[in-house]
Amino acid sequence: MTVQKNLNTSRPLDVLGKSLNSQVLIELKGGREFRGLLKSFDMHMNLVLNEAEELDGLETAKRLGIVLIRGDNIVYISPV
Amino acid sequence: MTVQKNLNTSRPLDVLGKSLNSQVLIELKGGREFRGLLKSFDMHMNLVLNEAEELDGLETAKRLGIVLIRGDNIVYISPV
Amino acid sequence: MTVQKNLNTSRPLDVLGKSLNSQVLIELKGGREFRGLLKSFDMHMNLVLNEAEELDGLETAKRLGIVLIRGDNIVYISPV
Amino acid sequence: MTVQKNLNTSRPLDVLGKSLNSQVLIELKGGREFRGLLKSFDMHMNLVLNEAEELDGLETAKRLGIVLIRGDNIVYISPV
Amino acid sequence: MTVQKNLNTSRPLDVLGKSLNSQVLIELKGGREFRGLLKSFDMHMNLVLNEAEELDGLETAKRLGIVLIRGDNIVYISPV
Amino acid sequence: MTVQKNLNTSRPLDVLGKSLNSQVLIELKGGREFRGLLKSFDMHMNLVLNEAEELDGLETAKRLGIVLIRGDNIVYISPV
Amino acid sequence: MTVQKNLNTSRPLDVLGKSLNSQVLIELKGGREFRGLLKSFDMHMNLVLNEAEELDGLETAKRLGIVLIRGDNIVYISPV
Repeated sequence: MTVQKNLNTSRPLDVLGKSLNSQVLIELKGGREFRGLLKSFDMHMNLVLNEAEELDGLETAKRLGIVLIRGDNIVYISPV
Repeated sequence: MTVQKNLNTSRPLDVLGKSLNSQVLIELKGGREFRGLLKSFDMHMNLVLNEAEELDGLETAKRLGIVLIRGDNIVYISPV
Repeated sequence: MTVQKNLNTSRPLDVLGKSLNSQVLIELKGGREFRGLLKSFDMHMNLVLNEAEELDGLETAKRLGIVLIRGDNIVYISPV
Repeated sequence: MTVQKNLNTSRPLDVLGKSLNSQVLIELKGGREFRGLLKSFDMHMNLVLNEAEELDGLETAKRLGIVLIRGDNIVYISPV
Repeated sequence: MTVQKNLNTSRPLDVLGKSLNSQVLIELKGGREFRGLLKSFDMHMNLVLNEAEELDGLETAKRLGIVLIRGDNIVYISPV
Repeated sequence: MTVQKNLNTSRPLDVLGKSLNSQVLIELKGGREFRGLLKSFDMHMNLVLNEAEELDGLETAKRLGIVLIRGDNIVYISPV
Repeated sequence: MTVQKNLNTSRPLDVLGKSLNSQVLIELKGGREFRGLLKSFDMHMNLVLNEAEELDGLETAKRLGIVLIRGDNIVYISPV
């Protein structure tokens, strides 16, 4: 196992560090989707989006501006 | 990764610090929405609103005055 | 951020300290409402009400006397 | 705030200490109710009832004798 | 409060210590019931039953032999 | 209580230690069942099965090979 | 028990270490499935997939590219 563990040098939340100031797509438990510019995050996956919008499929359902999403609601985060 | 992590100097809850004494919109799990003046918060996202009201779409559904919302109910918080 | 954070001198649960021996309205997950005199609380929002009653809208649905509510059930607490 | 906080000398679970060997009514998440003599409890609100019975309104639905209830199921506890 | 607290010399999980090698009835969240000889338990209420069976009312629905039940599923445990 | 507690020399997860490299039946919250050879486990009941299959009653519903099950999904684990 | 415990030299998450840069199948609570190349993981089972896709049975339902999945959503992870 030693070799494989050493290969795991990056950590999952590093993806968020690389996505700062870029657009991310966020899916919440229950299926709702948000998109916006990632401005900050913490270890709980609490995160702030700017120019955030809730999506309905590919459409904008609601413009939210700045939004702080509580991390425990999140299913996944994907850079877009 | 070092560069990107250093850029992440702000933390998500700083958005709440900037919103003290200003109006915020809060959405809870299940979809209910509250609006009011943010008076205090903690690391669990427990927070106190003054002049709080529950919303039904854009309308006021119920006036609550001062309200302490338990953080684990929150989906997102957005300055308005 | 330093200025805003310093302004946040009160903490959310201070609202409960100010409401001791006064009437509070409590809403639980699922929508049930209780009202009573707040006698004690802790950091989990476990709290004791005296002269407690469960409400059905504005009516008394059930008189409970002294009741200890487990904090994790709570959506919000509002002084009345 | 200092005065109000000092008034909060009792803690919520003290109500359970005062109810030892007395009858308590317990409501669980989902609405089920139990009644019995409180014999012990801990900080998680795990508790043991003797002569316990599950209630269906005011009637006895099921006699359980000694029962250990896991605290995370509890909505409220009320001395009767 | 001092007197009452001192009376609380036993702790809820002591009931499990007294029930080792004896039959217990276990109800899980969602209402399923198991019965068997309690062989071990820990502070999370993880526990092992021998000669375990799932019940359907008073009948045996399924024989399980040895079973390790994860504590967070449990509503109550009752010696039988 | 001292005697009974001393009798509780085994801990619930010891059953998993005894089941390494043997077949176990796992039931998840929601009722799904898996069967396979237990290869490793930890204190959260995260566990790895080899030659794993999801069951539909007594039939194989899906062959999974190696599978890591997150412990918080588990209702019970039973050696078969 | 000593012998069996010593045999448990691998830990469940070692399976993820061995699967780095390889395809894994992930099932989430609620039954949704994702497949992709595992790039990183942590002790909460937060993980990053590259070339990720959501599956609908054996078909690709949605291409996601890079995705960070929050560990608490996961039922199981299986190398494919």
